[in-house]
Amino acid sequence: MAKKEMHLGAFLLHTGHHVSAWRHPDSQPERVMEADYYRQLAQIAERGKFDMLFLADTLFANYANPHYFKHAVTTRPEPITLLSYLAGVTEHIGLAATVSTTYQEPYNLAREFAMLDHLSHGRAAWNIVTSSRDEEAANFGSSPHMEHSLRYERAREFAEVAAKLWDSWEDDATIADRRAGIFADPARVHTIHHRGEHFGVRGPLNLTRSPQGRPVFIQAGASDSGRRFAAEYAEVIFVAWQTFDEAKHYYNSLKQLLPEYGRSPEAVKVLPGILPIIGSTEQEARDKEALLQELVLPELGLSMLSSALGGADLSDAKWDGPLPSLPDASRINGGKSRFQLISDLARREQLTVRELIYRVTGARGHRTIAGTPEQIADHLTDWFIRGACDGFNIMPPVLPGGLEEFVDQVVPILQNRGLFRTAYTSSTLRGHLGLARPDSQFAASTV
Amino acid sequence: MAKKEMHLGAFLLHTGHHVSAWRHPDSQPERVMEADYYRQLAQIAERGKFDMLFLADTLFANYANPHYFKHAVTTRPEPITLLSYLAGVTEHIGLAATVSTTYQEPYNLAREFAMLDHLSHGRAAWNIVTSSRDEEAANFGSSPHMEHSLRYERAREFAEVAAKLWDSWEDDATIADRRAGIFADPARVHTIHHRGEHFGVRGPLNLTRSPQGRPVFIQAGASDSGRRFAAEYAEVIFVAWQTFDEAKHYYNSLKQLLPEYGRSPEAVKVLPGILPIIGSTEQEARDKEALLQELVLPELGLSMLSSALGGADLSDAKWDGPLPSLPDASRINGGKSRFQLISDLARREQLTVRELIYRVTGARGHRTIAGTPEQIADHLTDWFIRGACDGFNIMPPVLPGGLEEFVDQVVPILQNRGLFRTAYTSSTLRGHLGLARPDSQFAASTV
Repeated sequence: MAKKEMHLGAFLLHTGHHVSAWRHPDSQPERVMEADYYRQLAQIAERGKFDMLFLADTLFANYANPHYFKHAVTTRPEPITLLSYLAGVTEHIGLAATVSTTYQEPYNLAREFAMLDHLSHGRAAWNIVTSSRDEEAANFGSSPHMEHSLRYERAREFAEVAAKLWDSWEDDATIADRRAGIFADPARVHTIHHRGEHFGVRGPLNLTRSPQGRPVFIQAGASDSGRRFAAEYAEVIFVAWQTFDEAKHYYNSLKQLLPEYGRSPEAVKVLPGILPIIGSTEQEARDKEALLQELVLPELGLSMLSSALGGADLSDAKWDGPLPSLPDASRINGGKSRFQLISDLARREQLTVRELIYRVTGARGHRTIAGTPEQIADHLTDWFIRGACDGFNIMPPVLPGGLEEFVDQVVPILQNRGLFRTAYTSSTLRGHLGLARPDSQFAASTV
Repeated sequence: MAKKEMHLGAFLLHTGHHVSAWRHPDSQPERVMEADYYRQLAQIAERGKFDMLFLADTLFANYANPHYFKHAVTTRPEPITLLSYLAGVTEHIGLAATVSTTYQEPYNLAREFAMLDHLSHGRAAWNIVTSSRDEEAANFGSSPHMEHSLRYERAREFAEVAAKLWDSWEDDATIADRRAGIFADPARVHTIHHRGEHFGVRGPLNLTRSPQGRPVFIQAGASDSGRRFAAEYAEVIFVAWQTFDEAKHYYNSLKQLLPEYGRSPEAVKVLPGILPIIGSTEQEARDKEALLQELVLPELGLSMLSSALGGADLSDAKWDGPLPSLPDASRINGGKSRFQLISDLARREQLTVRELIYRVTGARGHRTIAGTPEQIADHLTDWFIRGACDGFNIMPPVLPGGLEEFVDQVVPILQNRGLFRTAYTSSTLRGHLGLARPDSQFAASTV
């Protein structure tokens, strides 16, 4: 076994992660619904030997916030269809997407991810989230929104049902014996007869077991319910940390929690988000960052900060003054960990409203690093070697350029240090990540 | 405008439409979950200049019927993911799939089809169905199944909501004015505020309007509620007819019904299903058909006939005797038109149980034609010229061979007669079918 290598995700968001990316001269806002644009991005990430690309998702256009709607990109490619398309135009890279459990049926979702895993020969990953916004509830007939802990209970049961469905066909259930006329062996296909609080599903699925058995499970919540859910189910965890100490503390506590759930520390990979702004000199990188920040319209910036703080009233806030006092975190339903992160940040670094807006509109609470390729590689190396993470989810500020720069300038440094693969050595995402392929829970049983 | 041409769909079903296809030496049952298999089929159909390929769907594996489960192919590729994959490996052919309205949310479905239309540059079509089986209900927490007319009411409202969502962004709503910082024009994006019996959806969608405006609407029910629904919404109708007179009568009555809904007769294309068995001589075609029928296991055939007849008890039926007496059609919930078609067929042609089984296990109520390429082309020409249809949905009995034979041997005859295109002349499915692109219902309004 070689030296431990880091894992990298390419988090692709329309024109880039900075809210001003679409105004930047290097971005391509006219292409955000175009298949070929995403093909190009996916192929760049694959050239960089990323473990996976990742698409986030929400179930609404931010129409209620007129500033955001008018001045930011609120359209999103639907991720399941886009990943299925990308399965046909890429060969190695993992294909990960957010799909919410709150307004889906397990049988439908299980079919789509199983098929994506078949189409991609074992490269599918599911970021399991709950939908927390009233604007999302309003698109699904319910209001106000389901309470935070109830959403997680539903998500937990959803994941459990989906896993049963993915396991319902054992790996060798299809016989296809032409002479005997036996296509499937009924003894190796299982009804699941699930009856829970939220779902009743008989099964079996109507697809055979997929190459990875199940898609890789990703989780992104750092709230208390999110953390326990992650320890129980997640195989990859996306986190947002500003400091090494926070990241290291979380990493250690999570890895220590895993044995409680009968899991080894290696069974879960923790990937903090990083927004890298790359320049040939540090000054060039800082100038790039400043250009993006200057492109943030003040009314948009204020409304985004307010939203990140659970809708806090900032109408009296001064652009260069401190953050006004905020409601208690317990009064927030949804995005609790984001609220905590932003308010801690403001207090710790004594940031002005303007400075805080720049943090929020750029990396949305994730860590931004502006520097040379060496400086960025040093930072990633430091966090990785000192045990704060298993790799990173890279959030290019502007696409496609920010991704190309990372692939062409940062990845080779990491490769030279022996910290990142120079070629794909497996054909599945589980293989890239060093995760075991789960057996069917019904194998060798008599259900 | 040239002479009127027929429209052709390629209805692709795993190993082929005959239930014994997977036992046939030319089929490829080991590939029914393989992306490359469907890529190959799609490219054959595209070589044949088909208007579209079509994937059917159900929301269960037929586990309750042990004969069917063991002896037939019960796995299915999930159609939305598969079509999204195929969007990337084809260029012209329309991409149509069944998605049921019974266990979906309009917002989710609208996003998936809008994205498929974006990914394919305007080639998406949606076959709007309701789910009628108790086995499907059992995978979605409800039992017994929703009543027939209620399912259609839900489907009607579903299509209405989906159309509003597809229209919620006017075609030119995205401005992307970098200098002014205006991405979208809020005056050209519309909340829909739908509140109905079945759904409450605020909107807008979070994708821009797609190349076709909306996917092409397909409908397949010939029951009374199905027929009115089709007249109101459908742009393509799939039908199953055994005789010219039935087909002609339906075609005329449907086209006469359209003006009641403010629609022109050309706004809807009617495509009967045809299962062609192609031989270099008529005898060779008949031998091919006989081989497929001999491969039907008796216990499987009886159970399929029973199922097609709404679960009628056939345990005392004699293989070479007449069909036993049946319950009244009004007592059937789901598949009414199929029940009527099969029982009419048995009475009209005085078929034995064995003969009826052969009809059911082959084309499932659709018309089978075994003959030379010329005989098959003559038949299609006759129905088309004499005004019983606008084209056909071709159901190859065994794949990929049955599709290749049709493309290489029947299509050229139709082309030589000037009845079918020799090259694609448009880039969208609406273009292939000669259907108008709908304007947004919100355009030039002040909603």
